[in-house]
Amino acid sequence: MLQDYFNEVINQVNKTIEKYLSNAPSGTSSLYEASKHLFSAGGKRLRPLILVSSCDFLGGDRSRAILAGSAIETLHTFTLIHDDIMDHDFLRRGLPTVHVKWGESMAILAGDLLHAKAFEMLNDSLEGVNETLHYEVMKTFINSIVVVSEGQAMDMQFEGRNDVTEEDYLEMVKKKTAYLIATSSKIGSLIGGAGPDVADKFFHFGIYLGIAFQIVDDIIGITSDEAELGKPLFSDIREGKRTLLVIRTLKEAESRELEVLKQVLGNKNASTDQLKEASQIVKKHSLEYAYSLAEEYRSRAISSLDGIQPRNQEAYEALKFVSEFTLKRKK
Amino acid sequence: MLQDYFNEVINQVNKTIEKYLSNAPSGTSSLYEASKHLFSAGGKRLRPLILVSSCDFLGGDRSRAILAGSAIETLHTFTLIHDDIMDHDFLRRGLPTVHVKWGESMAILAGDLLHAKAFEMLNDSLEGVNETLHYEVMKTFINSIVVVSEGQAMDMQFEGRNDVTEEDYLEMVKKKTAYLIATSSKIGSLIGGAGPDVADKFFHFGIYLGIAFQIVDDIIGITSDEAELGKPLFSDIREGKRTLLVIRTLKEAESRELEVLKQVLGNKNASTDQLKEASQIVKKHSLEYAYSLAEEYRSRAISSLDGIQPRNQEAYEALKFVSEFTLKRKK
Repeated sequence: MLQDYFNEVINQVNKTIEKYLSNAPSGTSSLYEASKHLFSAGGKRLRPLILVSSCDFLGGDRSRAILAGSAIETLHTFTLIHDDIMDHDFLRRGLPTVHVKWGESMAILAGDLLHAKAFEMLNDSLEGVNETLHYEVMKTFINSIVVVSEGQAMDMQFEGRNDVTEEDYLEMVKKKTAYLIATSSKIGSLIGGAGPDVADKFFHFGIYLGIAFQIVDDIIGITSDEAELGKPLFSDIREGKRTLLVIRTLKEAESRELEVLKQVLGNKNASTDQLKEASQIVKKHSLEYAYSLAEEYRSRAISSLDGIQPRNQEAYEALKFVSEFTLKRKK
Repeated sequence: MLQDYFNEVINQVNKTIEKYLSNAPSGTSSLYEASKHLFSAGGKRLRPLILVSSCDFLGGDRSRAILAGSAIETLHTFTLIHDDIMDHDFLRRGLPTVHVKWGESMAILAGDLLHAKAFEMLNDSLEGVNETLHYEVMKTFINSIVVVSEGQAMDMQFEGRNDVTEEDYLEMVKKKTAYLIATSSKIGSLIGGAGPDVADKFFHFGIYLGIAFQIVDDIIGITSDEAELGKPLFSDIREGKRTLLVIRTLKEAESRELEVLKQVLGNKNASTDQLKEASQIVKKHSLEYAYSLAEEYRSRAISSLDGIQPRNQEAYEALKFVSEFTLKRKK
């Protein structure tokens, strides 16, 4: 069963991460508690699932993939901790964010520790592989961090600008979100023995899927409810984020609606009623469009793998399921 | 001349770092400017000098050492940017700190980018070496980041505690400062072809030198003047840092002096006069002791290399000079 396949991967990844974050030396227990906080709060483990499935797809070494998948999840978690500080978010996965619970200094440090621990897991996943593969996987992983940082900088720079185009948005999302997902599938394929062409196809699978994922994330951010979402609704609007939905609405809405929206966008003191009114305007003009664009990217994602013969049919089904789940999820 | 040797290494390292931080993609120019800020402000380049000299000492590949040295300097700079946020410092190398100039969010992100760029340089320094060396150097580098984060957590946890012993201090300093210096000499030796025993001697050279370095740093932090130091004087006292000097004074001072000191330590609103009075008490009880302890560690450092035959006499002289400079420096 596909569910068993997922559960096994998730359990192995959770155990690995737990192992690498145990044994806090004396005087550092807060640091390690803060670092482990978001893992214990759940999460989808989307990136390790993609990495391990991509490796299994090609019949690669499962134990290396589990370590590399744990590395990518740890890296992702580091970015969440630092992003929550930068975006002033106070809830994540239904729990207080790390900086709310331990203070900003400890949250910065916990993110830094996870950043290093991610490299520790990745390096261990590559112990004994040939030097070319070691260099290449490391390079892919490192490059994704550089690109994700650039995406976060672009996202911050977009706030407050009303001239951000859909093209700008897609470029930013590709960097901020899609690149790490693409790195997951690419590294999975490399560990699975892929040559450059096949690795490139897995990379594109992840880029397209990642864009679909972020569009759906933007949608959920204004259509879900806080209890399900586990984080504040409308925070994108409050922070003035240029999501696909906002960009589309700024282009399509009537002048009276635009006036309301512009008063609320990026206004940290906006009331809940104002946020609700603004979100109604955004939904009216952008939801249908955003869903269809996400669906288009999902479809491109899975087509990227056409022509590669799966050595493991279940892994192929897993990647297909993950792509479909990306669109259907509610949180 | 030794000065030419140093200048050549420093120039090569500066050029390498500059190259890896050029070409900011559109929308990320602030991020790259913030990341480059502290490099352009100067700095001693102590860690790359130690790394390259250690490699030269054993007759290793200079171009790999320059890349690895650039990696370690970039890593060090990332820790400075994040530490300045955590310690609320507003001056560094005579310039406003990154978070003062660009805001905290951008400073967190700039540190993260440098963290990744450091790995990029290190991985490139290892391109084509055998897989065992690649794994081992990466592991050493990663471990140092974990340990440095733990040291920073201990340092933060010590603030406000009056029961920190000299032994606690040495353990914290070993992690927070000495480990990265020891990693520099160890990686230099590994790239230079050292086996485990020789690499271990270079590691110990760095640990002892790093402890001496930090003790001198603590001394300079209350004896220098701000113009020379390039950062605020007495900030250790204001933040309540448990430096060797403070620990020694808490143990040795009379009760009237202790009363004054405890009112000022960690008091963010302390006046300049109060800080000066507290620092006089600290100097009286600890300076001589601290200098002699630093000298003892410096001497242990250079003795750690006894019995290893230098393939390059200038590199040996360079390491000796760096050790001596560590004690004599004024900033």
